[in-house]
This record gives sequence, structure tokens and C-alpha cells, in this order.
Amino acid sequence: MIRAVTEQRRGSPMIVLFTDFGLEGPYTGQVKAVLFRTAPGIPVVELFADAPAGRPKPAAYLLAAYGVWFPPGTVFLAVIDPGVGGPRLPVIVEAEGRWHVGPDNGLFELVMRRAESVRTWEILWRPETLSASFHGRDLFAPIVARLARGELPDHEPRAPGIGRQTDWPDDLSEIVYVDRYGNAMTGLRGNLLSNDARLVVSGCTLRRASTFSDVQPGEAFWYENSNGLAEIAVNAGRAADALRLAIGSPIAVLR
Amino acid sequence: MIRAVTEQRRGSPMIVLFTDFGLEGPYTGQVKAVLFRTAPGIPVVELFADAPAGRPKPAAYLLAAYGVWFPPGTVFLAVIDPGVGGPRLPVIVEAEGRWHVGPDNGLFELVMRRAESVRTWEILWRPETLSASFHGRDLFAPIVARLARGELPDHEPRAPGIGRQTDWPDDLSEIVYVDRYGNAMTGLRGNLLSNDARLVVSGCTLRRASTFSDVQPGEAFWYENSNGLAEIAVNAGRAADALRLAIGSPIAVLR
Amino acid sequence: MIRAVTEQRRGSPMIVLFTDFGLEGPYTGQVKAVLFRTAPGIPVVELFADAPAGRPKPAAYLLAAYGVWFPPGTVFLAVIDPGVGGPRLPVIVEAEGRWHVGPDNGLFELVMRRAESVRTWEILWRPETLSASFHGRDLFAPIVARLARGELPDHEPRAPGIGRQTDWPDDLSEIVYVDRYGNAMTGLRGNLLSNDARLVVSGCTLRRASTFSDVQPGEAFWYENSNGLAEIAVNAGRAADALRLAIGSPIAVLR
Repeated sequence: MIRAVTEQRRGSPMIVLFTDFGLEGPYTGQVKAVLFRTAPGIPVVELFADAPAGRPKPAAYLLAAYGVWFPPGTVFLAVIDPGVGGPRLPVIVEAEGRWHVGPDNGLFELVMRRAESVRTWEILWRPETLSASFHGRDLFAPIVARLARGELPDHEPRAPGIGRQTDWPDDLSEIVYVDRYGNAMTGLRGNLLSNDARLVVSGCTLRRASTFSDVQPGEAFWYENSNGLAEIAVNAGRAADALRLAIGSPIAVLR
Repeated sequence: MIRAVTEQRRGSPMIVLFTDFGLEGPYTGQVKAVLFRTAPGIPVVELFADAPAGRPKPAAYLLAAYGVWFPPGTVFLAVIDPGVGGPRLPVIVEAEGRWHVGPDNGLFELVMRRAESVRTWEILWRPETLSASFHGRDLFAPIVARLARGELPDHEPRAPGIGRQTDWPDDLSEIVYVDRYGNAMTGLRGNLLSNDARLVVSGCTLRRASTFSDVQPGEAFWYENSNGLAEIAVNAGRAADALRLAIGSPIAVLR
Repeated sequence: MIRAVTEQRRGSPMIVLFTDFGLEGPYTGQVKAVLFRTAPGIPVVELFADAPAGRPKPAAYLLAAYGVWFPPGTVFLAVIDPGVGGPRLPVIVEAEGRWHVGPDNGLFELVMRRAESVRTWEILWRPETLSASFHGRDLFAPIVARLARGELPDHEPRAPGIGRQTDWPDDLSEIVYVDRYGNAMTGLRGNLLSNDARLVVSGCTLRRASTFSDVQPGEAFWYENSNGLAEIAVNAGRAADALRLAIGSPIAVLR
């Protein structure tokens, strides 16, 4: 699958994990063990270990927003994979110099759609031992490690139709993530919304603010978060609790 | 306790943490600080930070199943230690080239029982400052670091009777871990159960499947997980919630 | 802000994170990505990712107790920052060779008060892009990385009045942290309390013990924990649940 030929890469290699594996149980640890053994010395960063569990659609908007913060040369192991062990294909997606490895269930749809240049490969390599339920460890992590070392797929990329979900919108009017402070991220890019745009959730209409300290304690608002997503928050409070928001909650935009 | 003599080891050294310390609070961080200082450059992997809290018995079956996935040369800091500060002994267990450091409360019973070759040492070394409640940091981590660097105990191993719990069964018919997806791992090795074996939990009789995509959404089943344990799951659901399973829940096997 | 001049430092550099960012979501991962890029090869330890959320006062007592365990030369990224984006100042605090970077909201008050020598700088440097809500990533992490590499502020330290909360007590008679075992740490230093001192919480009067195995299962007590704080615990139980303790719960001391 991978040949020992080094492509000239821009940027410094770093491996970034975007999964629903959690950190405390055995899954991330085993993935990191594979990466440390196969790509020694390359830093591994856990970006999300609590991405939307088993839900590639909201995860796709989250990955697209957070991935572009990393420089070209970064290799993402992105695994939200409810169909593991079934017929879905394992893929490599290279988009503007960032490499992504994971299942073809739409998780990379927004990364591909927003990139100027995209190459896609089906992963044909299989390990000697492939468990039915943990491709993150057995199949994706070895590929990630070899890409991070500068190796390349040994066959031609496919036309980038693999793993597409062309019916998904460019921005998703839903909650895609709730963080530990109770802030609720949407699948909407903040810079595409006007300063006057209001978001309607759970019957409440929220105006935009720059950040928490711009509003009164207890007041709900939305703002463009540090990775560009419109995010619903309450100053000194928990927006998701106050407004009963969870992944998938719908949002209306008043422009 | 440890002499600066290097034994020829197979495999690459890696330090693996198996604890109930959690990751977000201060315990794992302080252990890693000791390891980074004392064994610089050796990778540290958190395998379980949420192993069964204060319960060495289910933890022992979990450790035995997950530890053998790592190559010889790996050093495990394994601390489930409800008796810290009491009379239990600190030990080193070497089993088929894997090194384990922790308390002698039975946590290594299944590792020892399943290994072809075992050596065991009581840890006689004591640090200058030994807290009463955090031997993971003060006593076990320095020993782990020195073993990972290739140092060896400076006295003869004891007969491997230390820390044994010979009355524990070879496989445990109980839930030993519930993961973040709500899947419930048993202490039973899947490859010792026939394809027709059924597991009875909470009054439900479950058949074997290969993996999630082999059954209908919402259907409960059991399968051999990626580290060899029989695991109870629900496709697109949470088995532990649906079947009211927790660590210690009993299982009956119909062969 | 920082000049490329190396000060002779004692001890080995290590970066320590003390935040309320959590580990599973995107915040700690992005901070670590900045640190790995800017200070490659320097170990990063997560000490607390669940320090008291948005509450600098209890966090200050926790940081002071846990920070001194680390050797001089350690650089702390300490961010409990409810006023991010507002007028609070970003600061560097050097106390007995340990470096601290974060907001001037009192988080370093006890570190400063207990140190024999302190230097304080306002951070004047600003990154090209500074988000309104994530100074931990954009402002504090780059400074931490450069301090860890041995660089120094390029202007004179201020008199150490910046960020002080001189009205806070020397020891805080409140719960400052509840750990995963349900143990409740106080803001009181155990070595300043007599062996006969009793702590009164939720109407219960607790005596001192050396550690868990000194009392009966189910019995509540207090002890000096492995970092010197008086901590309330129940042998084989969860003190915070049994005694209804949370961060901020008051404690009375009977000496």
C-alpha cells in the first residue's frame, strides 16, 4: 500500500487524533503504541477523543473547522466508524497538504469540499492480523505512521468521488459538539454570518457577541469561536444545559 | 534495588500505564513527570487510566488480556492499589519478557498463570520520601523507569509465590470493564468459547457474532473483542445501559 | 516580549499544564500542538486538566500545593481564565526558579506569597492572530514554549504587585478539588495542622489518620495527602458523596 519513497512535504510532520475513542480506556493508548513504534519521534496530539460518537455527519463539520488550523504536513487519524467491520472502505484523503486516514463514510466530505486540491486513495494494504472491530489500531494507525514518516501510497489516487456525501450542506444548521464548559458548537462558519445575524435555538433568539466578557453573566449569545465555528454560550453559565442543546439540535439563522 | 546492569532485552522499550488514576486529575501527570525525568526519551502510553477502581480481581483479567498485545520489553506500571500504605508488598513480575511493577494484591495473578516463564521480585528499595498514599508516583514509577532503561533488580528473584491468588478461576464469568460506548467486557477469553456458546446476562441469552455490523441495530450479542475477551454489545446502542451491566455483574455460559 | 538569550537555569525543563480545559475536547490538544512545534523535545505533562473551572481562587491553592513538587526550571501553563477577552492582564511569574504563565486574576497569589523570591512580568507580546476566547493556545502557549527553551522576557520585571489578591487567606478553609475517587482536597496545608486537629464538614467532625488503611472501611477521616494538602476521605468509599462536598464547601478547623 505504501512505498518507501519520500515526497517533499511542506511543514513539520505531526500526527493528530480525531476520534470518539476516549482517552481513559484502551483504544487511544493502543493506537498511540502503534504510532510510537512505527513513527518514533513524531509528536502525537489528541485533538478530539470525544468527537460525535458514531455520527460521521456532525463530526465532518467539526473536523473541517479544526483541521485547517494545523499546518500542511499534518497527518490526521480520523475515526468515527460505526460501520467498522462492514463494507465501508478505508481511505486516505490528501487536501492541501494535510493527510487524513479513516473510513469513507462522509467524515472527510467537508474537508474535501473546502479544499482547492484533493487526492484520494482507497487503502488496499491489510495487516497480517486485522481485528473485526478495531481498524483504528490495526489498519489506520500503521498507515498514518507511514505517511507521517514521508511514505506515499504506491498506486494512483482515485478520482475524488470516494466517500463523498454531496447532499450534505456546506454549513450544518445543527449543534455538532458540546464542550466541557457547556458551550455548543454549530456546523456554521461564523465568518459567513453577518454581525447582525441571530441564531434561534430552543425558542430563544441569540445575538452575536465578540466573547464572553461582552455580555452580562447569565446571558446567552453566539460568537465565532477560536476555530471559526459559530458557538452558542452563556457567560458564566452552561449554554447546553440552559438551552437544552445536544449534538443534532437544530438551529435557525435570522440574517 | 536496581543495579546499573543492562540485560539484553528483546523488543523496544515502552512504558505502559494500567491504573485507576484517571487522566484529568493530578495522579497520572505526576507519574509521567517521574518517568520523563528518570527515563527520558522512552515513550509512555496510557493503556487504561480507568481500570476497575480499587478492584484488583477484575483488573487482573483485563491486564492479562491487554498486556500480551504489547511486545516483550514493555514495562507496565500497573497500580490498582486499595491497600496502599498497608502491609501489601510492592513487586516486580517479569513474564515472557514483559515487566510489571505494582502491588502484590493479585493484580498479576493471571499474567503469571498464563506465562510460560515468570520471575518475581519483592521491591526492597525505598525512595528518600515515600508518601503514604501515592506509591504509584514515589515507589513504582522510579522502578518502572529504571527497568525501562534496562536496569535489573540487584537480588535474586523469589519463587513466584508472591502475590498469587491461586483460587481465582482461569477465566472470570463476570463483567470486568465497561467502555465508553457502553460495551461490557467479560473476563472470559473468546477463543475458549465455541461459536455456538451463548452468554446469559440479566436474564437475556446472547449469541455470538463477528462484529457489530453482523446484527440488527438495537440487537444485543457477544463477540470476541480486539484483545481476545468476550464482550457484550448492542449494535448502535449501549449494552451496559440496556442490560444493566456493571463491573462484577455475573455471566452464565451455555456451551 | 521574549529575547533569544538563555539564562542559566537550574533543573531540567519540563512543561506542566494546569488548566480547566479537559483532555478529550479540542483545547489541550491545540495547546500541545503549539508546544510541540515551538519547543520540540521538551516533555509536556498534564498535571490538572480539571482544575476548578472558572474559579481562580480555589485553583490558586491547588496550584501552590502541587507546583512545588516540580523542580526549578519547570514552566507552568496555568489557565483558569473566566475573564478571557476582557481587561485582565497576561503575566509571567517566576518564583524560586519555577516559571508560571497565565492570567493575573489571582491564580498565582499563593505561589507568589509562599516563595522567597518572585519576579513578575506583564506579557506585552501579542501573536499575529489572537482569538478572543482562546489565549491559552494563542498567547500563553507560545510564551511557555519560549521560556522552556531558555528564552527570557526582554524587559524588566515589575514590582510583584501585579495579579495579587492580598486579601485571600494563607490557607483556604474550603474544598478546592474533588478527585475521581471522591476524595475532597482542602486549601489547608496538613503540616500546619496538629495531629489532634479535627475538621468539621457537613456537620461531621473528622479526625486525622495517616492513610486509608488506618481506618475502618466506610469511616471518614482527613489526612495529609501526597502533595501536602489536608484531604477528606472515606476508606473504600467516596467522601464527596457521603458528606455532600463540592468545590467551595466550607470547613471548620478544631485545633
